[in-house]
Amino acid sequence: MKTKKEWMDLALTLAEATTSQTNPNPSVGAVVVKDGELLGVGTHLKSGEPHAEVHALKQAGEKAVGADIYVTLEPCAHYGKTPPCAELIVEKGIKHAYIACVDPNPKVAGKGIHMLKNAGISVEVGILEQRALSVNRAFFHTMRHHRPFVTLKAAMTLDGKTATATGDSKWVTDEEARIDVHKERHKHDAILVGRRTVEKDNPQLTTRLPQGGKNPIRIILDTQLALHDDYAVFDTAAQTWIVCGTRADITSFHEKHPHVTVIQMESDSIQVPNMLTRLAERGIQSLYVEGGGTIHEAFIKENVCDECHWYIAPKLLTGQDARSVVGGQSPQWMYEAEELTFEDFYQVGPDIKVIARPKEER
Amino acid sequence: MKTKKEWMDLALTLAEATTSQTNPNPSVGAVVVKDGELLGVGTHLKSGEPHAEVHALKQAGEKAVGADIYVTLEPCAHYGKTPPCAELIVEKGIKHAYIACVDPNPKVAGKGIHMLKNAGISVEVGILEQRALSVNRAFFHTMRHHRPFVTLKAAMTLDGKTATATGDSKWVTDEEARIDVHKERHKHDAILVGRRTVEKDNPQLTTRLPQGGKNPIRIILDTQLALHDDYAVFDTAAQTWIVCGTRADITSFHEKHPHVTVIQMESDSIQVPNMLTRLAERGIQSLYVEGGGTIHEAFIKENVCDECHWYIAPKLLTGQDARSVVGGQSPQWMYEAEELTFEDFYQVGPDIKVIARPKEER
Repeated sequence: MKTKKEWMDLALTLAEATTSQTNPNPSVGAVVVKDGELLGVGTHLKSGEPHAEVHALKQAGEKAVGADIYVTLEPCAHYGKTPPCAELIVEKGIKHAYIACVDPNPKVAGKGIHMLKNAGISVEVGILEQRALSVNRAFFHTMRHHRPFVTLKAAMTLDGKTATATGDSKWVTDEEARIDVHKERHKHDAILVGRRTVEKDNPQLTTRLPQGGKNPIRIILDTQLALHDDYAVFDTAAQTWIVCGTRADITSFHEKHPHVTVIQMESDSIQVPNMLTRLAERGIQSLYVEGGGTIHEAFIKENVCDECHWYIAPKLLTGQDARSVVGGQSPQWMYEAEELTFEDFYQVGPDIKVIARPKEER
Repeated sequence: MKTKKEWMDLALTLAEATTSQTNPNPSVGAVVVKDGELLGVGTHLKSGEPHAEVHALKQAGEKAVGADIYVTLEPCAHYGKTPPCAELIVEKGIKHAYIACVDPNPKVAGKGIHMLKNAGISVEVGILEQRALSVNRAFFHTMRHHRPFVTLKAAMTLDGKTATATGDSKWVTDEEARIDVHKERHKHDAILVGRRTVEKDNPQLTTRLPQGGKNPIRIILDTQLALHDDYAVFDTAAQTWIVCGTRADITSFHEKHPHVTVIQMESDSIQVPNMLTRLAERGIQSLYVEGGGTIHEAFIKENVCDECHWYIAPKLLTGQDARSVVGGQSPQWMYEAEELTFEDFYQVGPDIKVIARPKEER
């Protein structure tokens, strides 16, 4: 007979299987169990489609009366695109509800649990909570901070360079690291670069994996809308959003690229925090920043970097004038450096991938 | 009853226990065994003192007749500060000699083995050879290339910076990494920095560990002998050698610092490869380079970096103008970067230590 943790583990496995396909909804899994027998499983597949609990309870049918339900996230209590799951759980006659974590969405935030308890269902919250929070890290982050979870990605030599002084950067890392980057693109809602990266490399910014993958929305920062030519990012392989300042000529850009979404900020220059709020409003919860040194510096200076993915190649380029992985102006003192914590580091092909987060949790 | 590998393991453990104290001699261990019984152990402790075999055979005494000897390095065959060990092994009536690796010293290089075989002793070479080569890596390297084994050490932020644009570098890494550096200093024959590091930081360049340690010889590159003041490197805590070019005024420097050894090169500027040859002639087999970006660049450009010890701190300094871990001029193309292989990487306190070697073995 399985333990509560083992049933929740199954529900979490179901939730994890839908990573990056439920946006703007979280990934959720549910299982219905009675006397050690599995009666139903469910996972939320896509926004607008039934929630995990609906699938699991439907499968359990009449047997749900007196059964236990394990859900990775607090059941919803409001009428959205679907009726509230907490109501359905009550209706079906569930006796015990095991919930991994509370939903930070202000429309839920404890109301689902309250509804269950009011109906006489015994509720236990917090089983495998850390893992449940991690599954929907970007969703929770966006709910809490009203901006996406931001990952800065960089590929540098062991001496911190991304390109020579003349801009040559082919290639810093090896094939395996580049495949890893495509896997990350698949996992993220959107990918962001600056105008100069488009001009220099003309990248596609799509997910290209042998097994296929979801393309992130391509976001280009171009204050003046100076990118007029037929760059690859303006093809129709994936959605493209271009962010500009107040002085940009939107009309002529739109004539040229009618299928590109233009997001105009309310200032001459693009303020990164404001831009992130706008992206969150449009449903972007996870943002993968593949900028050059200038873009990275802007995110770091504004304290809006939530994770760094650094690919370090076993090479020494040399050159104070070679392009630094983070550009801009040096601070005066070493203690002014942004402090991080190394979360993980491991070999990816001949390169090392380092994952770091800000030292002070935001 | 122990296997041959197990006896050689014991001999290697004895050799490893004397790392960095036998210079200019290699570290060597020996054990004498008969019918599974250990009769004698020995390790070479210091140049000028008896070799490992002498200690082990002395301890074995009369019982050595018909016994086996395990030695981590081919026994010497020439009269140096001590008589040849191969001769002693023959005299003592040893039956089998097990040798981990051949001595690359041209005075030995197979002659010791030849002497044993000629006397009718059965000889087996190559037991745990890789480990035996590794124990005396710097010794073998110097014999083969006529220059020390060079390790470049750097402490940088995750964005490849060692100091701010104004030169502030206190501190990049944490306490544990700094202790690790002192352990490395203890292991090396000499430590090298440039004039600017002395002027900027006034470092002691000594080994400061709670358990004590051997100070490396301090080597300062100062083409013009411009360092006149009473910097800490000119104290008597450790030996200091200063390397200069032909135009330096040695006489006035010597009056000021009579206990400092001056090595004058035969050119106006200091050519790194020539300088390394001079150091090898004076017995330096392992050199720990704690230079700034300019010194590191000189070693990398000359292809005389044998290992990199990079301490990476979980910090982002930002700034194209901040001091890069490797300075100088950028090459034009990324493919011109010096290619390395990551040998190892692990956490040291909050920092990561990366050990890398040139991709093409020299």
